[in-house]
Amino acid sequence: MKYAKPLPGYLAQRYHGWKATAFKENEVWYRRLADDGQHPRAMIICCCDSRVEATQIFGADPGEFFVHRNIANLIPPYEVGGQQHGTSSTVEFAVKMLKVAHIVVMAHQHCGGAQGCIDMCEGNAPELESKDSFTGRWMEMLRPRYEQVADIDDPEQKAREMEKQTVVVSLENLMTFPFVKEAVEQNGLSLHGLWINIGEGVLEGYDPATGRFAPV
Amino acid sequence: MKYAKPLPGYLAQRYHGWKATAFKENEVWYRRLADDGQHPRAMIICCCDSRVEATQIFGADPGEFFVHRNIANLIPPYEVGGQQHGTSSTVEFAVKMLKVAHIVVMAHQHCGGAQGCIDMCEGNAPELESKDSFTGRWMEMLRPRYEQVADIDDPEQKAREMEKQTVVVSLENLMTFPFVKEAVEQNGLSLHGLWINIGEGVLEGYDPATGRFAPV
Amino acid sequence: MKYAKPLPGYLAQRYHGWKATAFKENEVWYRRLADDGQHPRAMIICCCDSRVEATQIFGADPGEFFVHRNIANLIPPYEVGGQQHGTSSTVEFAVKMLKVAHIVVMAHQHCGGAQGCIDMCEGNAPELESKDSFTGRWMEMLRPRYEQVADIDDPEQKAREMEKQTVVVSLENLMTFPFVKEAVEQNGLSLHGLWINIGEGVLEGYDPATGRFAPV
Amino acid sequence: MKYAKPLPGYLAQRYHGWKATAFKENEVWYRRLADDGQHPRAMIICCCDSRVEATQIFGADPGEFFVHRNIANLIPPYEVGGQQHGTSSTVEFAVKMLKVAHIVVMAHQHCGGAQGCIDMCEGNAPELESKDSFTGRWMEMLRPRYEQVADIDDPEQKAREMEKQTVVVSLENLMTFPFVKEAVEQNGLSLHGLWINIGEGVLEGYDPATGRFAPV
Repeated sequence: MKYAKPLPGYLAQRYHGWKATAFKENEVWYRRLADDGQHPRAMIICCCDSRVEATQIFGADPGEFFVHRNIANLIPPYEVGGQQHGTSSTVEFAVKMLKVAHIVVMAHQHCGGAQGCIDMCEGNAPELESKDSFTGRWMEMLRPRYEQVADIDDPEQKAREMEKQTVVVSLENLMTFPFVKEAVEQNGLSLHGLWINIGEGVLEGYDPATGRFAPV
Repeated sequence: MKYAKPLPGYLAQRYHGWKATAFKENEVWYRRLADDGQHPRAMIICCCDSRVEATQIFGADPGEFFVHRNIANLIPPYEVGGQQHGTSSTVEFAVKMLKVAHIVVMAHQHCGGAQGCIDMCEGNAPELESKDSFTGRWMEMLRPRYEQVADIDDPEQKAREMEKQTVVVSLENLMTFPFVKEAVEQNGLSLHGLWINIGEGVLEGYDPATGRFAPV
Repeated sequence: MKYAKPLPGYLAQRYHGWKATAFKENEVWYRRLADDGQHPRAMIICCCDSRVEATQIFGADPGEFFVHRNIANLIPPYEVGGQQHGTSSTVEFAVKMLKVAHIVVMAHQHCGGAQGCIDMCEGNAPELESKDSFTGRWMEMLRPRYEQVADIDDPEQKAREMEKQTVVVSLENLMTFPFVKEAVEQNGLSLHGLWINIGEGVLEGYDPATGRFAPV
Repeated sequence: MKYAKPLPGYLAQRYHGWKATAFKENEVWYRRLADDGQHPRAMIICCCDSRVEATQIFGADPGEFFVHRNIANLIPPYEVGGQQHGTSSTVEFAVKMLKVAHIVVMAHQHCGGAQGCIDMCEGNAPELESKDSFTGRWMEMLRPRYEQVADIDDPEQKAREMEKQTVVVSLENLMTFPFVKEAVEQNGLSLHGLWINIGEGVLEGYDPATGRFAPV
């Protein structure tokens, strides 16, 4: 792979800083994690967006969260023989191998993926409609939710609502995985939905009773 | 989604702690991130493993890293009409929309995915061979690399080498994406490979000159 | 003490979160507690086990419970000139200095100490019989109770019963302390026994009329 | 045990509240803790004082902290054939059975035990000198530290210093346990000292470099 380059200096420098401080002070814990394997209590599914750092928001230490991050925190439906293995394998690994107690799906304000889906649905994103747009194809699974937000006039409000729909669709799709459904029904796993407004630091949780989100 | 439950109390408590401290102290920055959008300098591709927290290791603040995490930090090859959209869309979004300057692929010691692939290749993991094993199907893309490690007798050494092969295959596959190749060749993007021994805090970088990994 | 290390970062972070939230919101009360001293209504004696958090179960605020936690929530008999001061001093301090109104002894399901005592009594724990086993020596005081459970065939049921015997022996030993006996007989103190099944959240109370435990 | 009484109504009521809320919402986790056993990362040794709730200060969830609480958070020296089993067994169980990664000794402002020891050393507490004073006998192990504070004129400052000496003596005594020393020297365990001013919410950590305490 002749194209690879050495790690940028600023990252190498920070790594050495981490090694001499946080790693040094916690080396007992790091060694324990290496020797005993991981036993994370929760799986977090959130967006790749650089502003959404779930481990910081929840003060999670190494070993606590098994984290899958993709565009718009989407989980496709269960499909044997399908090919959405990248995401499905993370759910499978978390539930069947690690037996996590919680799966938390966390969406966020200003999600480019959710906005892209709205744009597609409103005919404003021909580039996403192209068959070679991976992002467009990935967002297809959110598309049916557009009808939930189509009547909202205010574009900001519409976007926020579509962001929250990413959580609902993912939670619903999670329940199509037989091993997830079984674990949930046997009280071996609980599912949780969140949406964060990173600009104001407001975290909202999905309330199954009302089908709405409310501040935590 | 009647199955969803409220956020576990321990996470709600920690969120409130974050809101009152880290968020409060940095609220100007968080608002800026919300208002101006994200402009991350680097994309990080690493494993979902709870022990591999790239943002901690590199002291990354919100807004710095666009992060994709999947099993064994694998990137499939470019394939229009294929269905590995979950991962491919993250690369597309990072390179075409965000125009990140670096893509860093980081593997790690004790990777369950890499070990699973070895087990499959050696006939010791029939459950991963099953067509309904998402993890098994996902690891198929690493399978051809087994020949690079097949002759290694020591199982520990073999596992370490296979973990590093996840980086090589992902870097090679990244270069099959036309927009990645073009950006790299025009010096608009650089690719980097890493492997970390979390127990000892040792970070190794892929050296294209030798094709080997060496401590950063 | 050159071996001591700084507080692990994850605990420092959580402390700062507590300071900025729970402490901040209740600072009047915390200052009052500091200035006026503690006046706890109850003493709780429970196991060190990480799953048995009496203050959470009873929603106790700072200042409410004077808490002694040791292996298997055991109280040794009163013995002047003896050396079980660690536990006896907590009872003395609670009753003579703080004049608590209640002493609650709370045992729990899956108690490692109670199980260890059964193992010793059945000849299956030579390591606990060793004179340098502090846990083994501590559990000696539960040993005479084995005869209460010896005839139970089911190991699970036997363990549950032995766990409840830790409460009975502690309550009986409490009454050997002259100042406890006097306070109880003068209606200045009441004693209570509990056992909790943490997996199902079921709390059982000792009923002196029947000598058995029943759900609260 | 005819003297035992039913659980006071206020505690029964709170238990039922906990069962219907915090337990209900986290029942997956509670069942997991019951089925899989405890795997606490840290042992906390703190005072019985009702104002010192380490699990609240550190936002610890059930399963996180193995907690021993006694008068003045004291650990006696290792002594085979001795009888301080109550405390020594907690350390033994935490290190040998549970293999905790951290032991945190936390002292606090206005510690009645530390003040009692000063009073004894200055001839002002004849009741604590009595051979039937369990608290007095327990505090004997702190007595040699009086010389560290004897020259301090201000009684408040002297008390604060004596409280911090409880941490130093306990950390030193911990290192006399062969299994503690071995684990520390092999980087399998780290020791930490803390002192908290509960009235102001200020937490100080013991700094082995200076032998002093400084705010965390």
